[in-house]
Amino acid sequence: MDTETPPNFRPGTDAFRWDGVAYQPYKQDGEAPFKDISRQTLFHDDALACELRYFEMDDKGYSTLERHEHAHAVMILRGSGQCMVGEEVRDVRQFDLVTIPAWTWHQFRATAGEAFGFLCMVNMTRDRPVLPSEDDLGRMRANPAVAAFLGS
Amino acid sequence: MDTETPPNFRPGTDAFRWDGVAYQPYKQDGEAPFKDISRQTLFHDDALACELRYFEMDDKGYSTLERHEHAHAVMILRGSGQCMVGEEVRDVRQFDLVTIPAWTWHQFRATAGEAFGFLCMVNMTRDRPVLPSEDDLGRMRANPAVAAFLGS
Repeated sequence: MDTETPPNFRPGTDAFRWDGVAYQPYKQDGEAPFKDISRQTLFHDDALACELRYFEMDDKGYSTLERHEHAHAVMILRGSGQCMVGEEVRDVRQFDLVTIPAWTWHQFRATAGEAFGFLCMVNMTRDRPVLPSEDDLGRMRANPAVAAFLGS
Repeated sequence: MDTETPPNFRPGTDAFRWDGVAYQPYKQDGEAPFKDISRQTLFHDDALACELRYFEMDDKGYSTLERHEHAHAVMILRGSGQCMVGEEVRDVRQFDLVTIPAWTWHQFRATAGEAFGFLCMVNMTRDRPVLPSEDDLGRMRANPAVAAFLGS
């Protein structure tokens, strides 16, 4: 991340990139728990107690299936797709709001044949995400909607 | 504001309103330092150190001209208009980013003949805004771009 103070005005582009914001494609290999997702940190400022990030997935991409103590506040910004929060799986689209409470398994998937992007507000100080064990995955898959969402 | 915990999924509407989010038109009279602006608090959660609000102005509306110690992190979400941050006045449009640093005079104006809305991330714990004195306004108007933005 840039440590320089960004200018007060940072225009966006039609491609959901921003002047002065680093585009960070996630490195991935066969073991990666996510697919075809990028991050742009839109606001990271010592004067603010939260960060605002923008994540975007290509078609068929997905975010990491994870949980943690800290909460997320999400607004879908681009396209549509699906989101799992605990036992709930929903179709979501531009400008919908999603709350991820503490210690709740969650994942976003670009299931609608298009790029799918969302804003995520999160506390600057936060714990590290936890990935599911095989036992956790087995318990999640007991819910048919979750099993269908997670795929094979 | 609702004190009940909102559901994890809150769909938006095409009119930039959200299920389960109170629409708060600002009360105004001849003395009000703002015009035709509404607020919707999208995220207000004890687990989060910031709030995310959505402000919207009708054509020719404007936000309060103010400053304060706390910072704002803004993304334009609807339409286009103008924004003043200190000595800078800029045209801004959907998805542009604006940072309002501490103690910087700022205002948003719907100057483009359309509704103009923005997301604003702000620390949950913050100081109260200060309004400009006549002396402050005189100093601001010494900058021609600011004077034109503020109008008569």
